[in-house]
Amino acid sequence: MEGVDYLGDERRKAEFDVDEMKIVWAGSKHAFDLTDRMSKMVASDPVFRKDNRTMLDRKALFKSTLEKSAHAFKRVDELNLTYEEATKLRFFIDEPTYTDLHWGMFVPAIRGQGTEEQQEKWLKLAEKMQIIGCYAQTELGHGSNVQGLETTATFDSTTDEFVIHSPTLTSSKWWPGGLGKVSTHAVVYARLIIEGQDHGVHGFIVQLRSLEDHLPLPGITVGDIGTKFGNGGYNTMDNGVLRFDHVRIPRNQMLMRVLQVSREGKCTYSDVPRQLIYGTMVYVRQNIVTDASIALSRAVTVATRYSCVRRQFGSQNGGMETQVIDYKTQQNRLFPLLASAYAFRFVSEWLKWLYGDVTARLNANDFSMLPEAHACTAGLKSLTTSATADAIEECRKLCGGHGYLCSSGLPELFAMYVPACTYEGDNVVLLLQVARFLVKTVSQLGSGKQPVGTTAYMGRAEHLMQCRSNVERAEDWLNPSAILEAFEARAFRMVVSCAQSLRNFPSPEEGFAELSADLAEVAIAHCQLIVVSKFIDKLKQEIPGKGVKQQLKNLCNIYALSLLHKHQGEFLATSSITAEQASLANTQLRNLYSQVRPNAVALVDSFNYTDHYLGSILGRYDGNVYPKLYEAAWKDPLNESVVTDGYVEYIKPLLKGKLHLSRL
Amino acid sequence: MEGVDYLGDERRKAEFDVDEMKIVWAGSKHAFDLTDRMSKMVASDPVFRKDNRTMLDRKALFKSTLEKSAHAFKRVDELNLTYEEATKLRFFIDEPTYTDLHWGMFVPAIRGQGTEEQQEKWLKLAEKMQIIGCYAQTELGHGSNVQGLETTATFDSTTDEFVIHSPTLTSSKWWPGGLGKVSTHAVVYARLIIEGQDHGVHGFIVQLRSLEDHLPLPGITVGDIGTKFGNGGYNTMDNGVLRFDHVRIPRNQMLMRVLQVSREGKCTYSDVPRQLIYGTMVYVRQNIVTDASIALSRAVTVATRYSCVRRQFGSQNGGMETQVIDYKTQQNRLFPLLASAYAFRFVSEWLKWLYGDVTARLNANDFSMLPEAHACTAGLKSLTTSATADAIEECRKLCGGHGYLCSSGLPELFAMYVPACTYEGDNVVLLLQVARFLVKTVSQLGSGKQPVGTTAYMGRAEHLMQCRSNVERAEDWLNPSAILEAFEARAFRMVVSCAQSLRNFPSPEEGFAELSADLAEVAIAHCQLIVVSKFIDKLKQEIPGKGVKQQLKNLCNIYALSLLHKHQGEFLATSSITAEQASLANTQLRNLYSQVRPNAVALVDSFNYTDHYLGSILGRYDGNVYPKLYEAAWKDPLNESVVTDGYVEYIKPLLKGKLHLSRL
Ligand SMILES: Cc1cc2nc3c(=O)[nH]c(=O)nc-3n(C[C@H](O)[C@H](O)[C@H](O)COP(=O)(O)OP(=O)(O)OC[C@H]3O[C@@H](n4cnc5c(N)ncnc54)[C@H](O)[C@@H]3O)c2cc1C
Ligand SMILES: Cc1cc2nc3c(=O)[nH]c(=O)nc-3n(C[C@H](O)[C@H](O)[C@H](O)COP(=O)(O)OP(=O)(O)OC[C@H]3O[C@@H](n4cnc5c(N)ncnc54)[C@H](O)[C@@H]3O)c2cc1C
Ligand SMILES: [Ca+2]
Repeated sequence: MEGVDYLGDERRKAEFDVDEMKIVWAGSKHAFDLTDRMSKMVASDPVFRKDNRTMLDRKALFKSTLEKSAHAFKRVDELNLTYEEATKLRFFIDEPTYTDLHWGMFVPAIRGQGTEEQQEKWLKLAEKMQIIGCYAQTELGHGSNVQGLETTATFDSTTDEFVIHSPTLTSSKWWPGGLGKVSTHAVVYARLIIEGQDHGVHGFIVQLRSLEDHLPLPGITVGDIGTKFGNGGYNTMDNGVLRFDHVRIPRNQMLMRVLQVSREGKCTYSDVPRQLIYGTMVYVRQNIVTDASIALSRAVTVATRYSCVRRQFGSQNGGMETQVIDYKTQQNRLFPLLASAYAFRFVSEWLKWLYGDVTARLNANDFSMLPEAHACTAGLKSLTTSATADAIEECRKLCGGHGYLCSSGLPELFAMYVPACTYEGDNVVLLLQVARFLVKTVSQLGSGKQPVGTTAYMGRAEHLMQCRSNVERAEDWLNPSAILEAFEARAFRMVVSCAQSLRNFPSPEEGFAELSADLAEVAIAHCQLIVVSKFIDKLKQEIPGKGVKQQLKNLCNIYALSLLHKHQGEFLATSSITAEQASLANTQLRNLYSQVRPNAVALVDSFNYTDHYLGSILGRYDGNVYPKLYEAAWKDPLNESVVTDGYVEYIKPLLKGKLHLSRL
Repeated sequence: MEGVDYLGDERRKAEFDVDEMKIVWAGSKHAFDLTDRMSKMVASDPVFRKDNRTMLDRKALFKSTLEKSAHAFKRVDELNLTYEEATKLRFFIDEPTYTDLHWGMFVPAIRGQGTEEQQEKWLKLAEKMQIIGCYAQTELGHGSNVQGLETTATFDSTTDEFVIHSPTLTSSKWWPGGLGKVSTHAVVYARLIIEGQDHGVHGFIVQLRSLEDHLPLPGITVGDIGTKFGNGGYNTMDNGVLRFDHVRIPRNQMLMRVLQVSREGKCTYSDVPRQLIYGTMVYVRQNIVTDASIALSRAVTVATRYSCVRRQFGSQNGGMETQVIDYKTQQNRLFPLLASAYAFRFVSEWLKWLYGDVTARLNANDFSMLPEAHACTAGLKSLTTSATADAIEECRKLCGGHGYLCSSGLPELFAMYVPACTYEGDNVVLLLQVARFLVKTVSQLGSGKQPVGTTAYMGRAEHLMQCRSNVERAEDWLNPSAILEAFEARAFRMVVSCAQSLRNFPSPEEGFAELSADLAEVAIAHCQLIVVSKFIDKLKQEIPGKGVKQQLKNLCNIYALSLLHKHQGEFLATSSITAEQASLANTQLRNLYSQVRPNAVALVDSFNYTDHYLGSILGRYDGNVYPKLYEAAWKDPLNESVVTDGYVEYIKPLLKGKLHLSRL
């Protein structure tokens, strides 16, 4: 069976150069080589196997992940991997674990909020993992509203210490990853209290466990918060609970880059601009958007390959049945998701550029672009994670019954992915932030303030309020400017209409509260426009490789036109297009599906995922699905014995009538 | 803490008689008493506890479910429960298990497809559970297309037996619940082969395991197919794989109510109408729609209660923060789901009536209503299960981070519920069946054939093509006839438009294939109309209880207007309403949310779920969420030891630099 390729026919149909597309997807030849090398390294190392993940109980699962993390650290060391390589290696292990928080939140928090001395001291320890840290912000009763945190850090000038305390049950830290069973340290967010005065929420480095025996230090209660969604899923992570009973730390463990507390308990702001945190936010959210494109492309790979393997109905004269990918309903559900994966990839690439731009401006003390950059990244985080979560589940459904098996990989992927809609900003809360910014932008249009960046189009207000789409035939929708104009008109008219409605309320705040559901829709319309326009921008670049650009054009059009169909109501209600034009868009969409169909498998091959990383029998590269599903079934613990455990106690008495003898 | 009611204030706000609403929800006083009694009986029996479900490994989980099933049987016997009571008792145990298939598929299959002698013999054994049976239709390579099954049942006239055989790997039976580790018997669907001639797919009773020692009989390979979505979820069920190697069964074990095979191998059709199966389908699908309303109402209960407990932002002067249920975005996501729960409940009540009607007509040899009844139930199964699956996940997201914990109950509910979108007919395949029926109905309008049942409105073709909504103010949308007309116009115009487009294709089949995505949307529009109209019908009945009817009116309007907003594009594209009217609908919707808000908790209390059945700390009746979440955390197996298992091997060496000594 080795060496078969049941998808060979599909691959031969491709009309473009897959190797070149792989580089486009990866972002560069360098990025491609790196991910290719690291993913294969992980895939070939038996310690990193994950096919038994859903069969382990919580303790065994957790322990196996600890083993992997340690093994990864060892490999990085042995092979002398670069930071970039090490990050990729950990990434391909594909299990949430404490190192995500250590490297992804603890270290950056110290780097961003610590003074130079603090960085010197703590980063050194952290980088060698002589301490392990987590990020303890959220509390049992407080999440989205960080300003509502209850944990206190009270300055004791007699001892030059802060007293960290959990005054209520709801102030218990709750959720931080890596906290429950592993971290020795945490950056703890707490209210700074000096002589009874509340100075708001700040970060403090607090040691939690002994470096000798790993026992919690005095005054510290810490543990895991329990099982989460999915079998393996996030259960490899020790999201934790933490309570402080008057725990004392030296004054110099408050992160003081921005606000300093002196020996006497005086607060002084440094000259470091407070806007610095925006830079970090753009960075973190850009990563989340990249992750969305990855999670989505994984799910799409599984659904696409399996849809070519799976056949149902339509056999004539005893011939083969139809591949389900040939059904238009299947295409209509799948291909827009394939297009979204590429769309999110390119917008995340652009966000990477934006991060560089923001950083450069910050360094030059130019804060003019910050609000726009902040709104845009918040919106894209929300848009792409929500779409990806839904898409993974849709891909699972596209696989019919077999998608429900863990061996399809999709249930695990979903369970592991969905919290991205909640952490780093609840997606609805984020949309409302974007909406607030958009309404403000529109309200300032008259005042001569020019909208910048992704809101620049609003500067063409008059045109956007008046323009009429000139699409007359289905092919006209292939014109990027037709698409762009329709999306701009829709978004702009929606903002304007909301801004007008807001004026009917006694106060802007009341209006905003009352209309918030509409405002969230406005924010989505604006963010979709960003994604569409960045995809179109990408296509203006030179892209080498036979047929590659044509495929991307098709995907860009599918992304835009499928959104146009889905949100038809908004395009029509704002008169951005006519019903007739909407119908032409739909016709064009069907044509595009036919063009993508022969390239579908090659388009997912271009993501270059190993079978290990995919973790899906349905999505296997070779399409050898049925024998492998069959083989895998027998590995379930229930199959260890032919007669099931429990037969004697619970089944036999039933069959023998021994449970209800009284009535026989 | 016992006896507190943190939601007491919410309950006191209610403007209607909750006890009366409970009876409306249950369907009758009798039904209320029954469910109330049985759910409390299960809740108070420690054997039925389920709060540890997500912490068990597969084997322990499975065994505990076997125990519960046996215990349930014993209780039924001891208490001499009626069939109705026993069914409810099993229902409230709330774990998928082999008895679902035994009672829900195996017994009905024999009753529906077996001859009188066969029923006499097998039902007697099955009803005492002296045999345990499952329903083995789906194969590894064949699901939706039942006619494509590969398993063969070849008649051997020399021995008067059928030889049941799995000729290929893909012919392995795959998925049947209860098959993997429990069932002694199965109704196996296989191709009937007589003297080389294929007579299509029929059902056969096959013994799988010895009644003495439970070992598989010779020629039978059987086992579990492996872990499925979710932690507990469906993993309490032994969905199975089964292969036959020339297994012989007596001729009289083919289910012969419709087709009979004689001693000589002659096939004869009995005079029992083949349409009988439609009756069973209506029955099974009505149950699925009821289950949708239950699963949805559970999720909504959790999200509603927790949204009252949870507070974020908006505190002024150190006061309490805002209850998140007071945010319009939260209401806009939650209240349409609350309304859907009621809507699905009432449509399932109507389906119960329809089943009675269909049965009566079948007995009178009247088949005229069958195609319509079949299409309508297929469509409602698809609509309600898809909406419910999405809604459960939305309810989970409405709970923010805490919704991601298994202790919220929502991850388990989702994982357990989603296969309803796939089994008993893949939801997309079903929509296409509905669409086919609708197109046919429209095409026959000219020929004088009157559309019946839920398609009767199509008889008013001329009116529906011309009517214009006369809504002028937001309040006009409270008028049921305004809503009904808009939904009828939209659905009808969409069908007509598709039917017209189909004519542009060389053949209807080609057209149907090409336009299938649009056709699926047409089917949804039609099915939404059914749900809306049955809700409106319900409101025409007398409904006792102070304020009860007013609440239901609000919910009916929310259901309809939120759909109208979501599918605005279709209403506008078909000119069923204007953009201005759509906007008025939205304004009315916001008003309705304000009216539901004070009644929200009472409206979910009316479902009368015990805390045991809800299985959610966030959804607790008393709202005592935080202390109970905190308490539950400590029960996680990871918290059994303070220093984690794996510390010595995988964490200590890291911290001590022992993993990378070489470089220090
Ligand atoms: C897997 C996972 C890992 C995590 N890791 C960490 C970690 O390492 N460290 C850490 O500190 N935290 C962590 N968290 C916590 C996470 O950051 C919070 O859960 C997140 O910020 C959401 O906050 P919440 O849970 O309070 O949601 P809530 O704010 O309570 O949301 C509940 C509902 O209220 C709505 N809502 C809230 N405010 C508003 C508003 N103003 N307007 C309208 N609607 C509103 C929301 O939309 C949502 O529907 C993690 C969470 C998860 C799930
Ligand atoms: C939890 C669970 C329990 C089950 N229990 C049982 C049981 O007890 N006994 C039993 O016999 N079976 C059982 N099944 C099997 C179940 O009945 C099938 O999975 C179901 O019928 C779907 O078929 P499929 O898996 O072949 O999906 P497929 O048909 O392979 O679906 C794959 C994709 O193809 C699409 N598709 C298929 N045909 C068409 C078409 N003509 N046009 C357009 N699109 C199409 C679908 O929409 C879907 O997107 C169970 C399944 C599950 C998940
Ligand atoms: Ca488990």
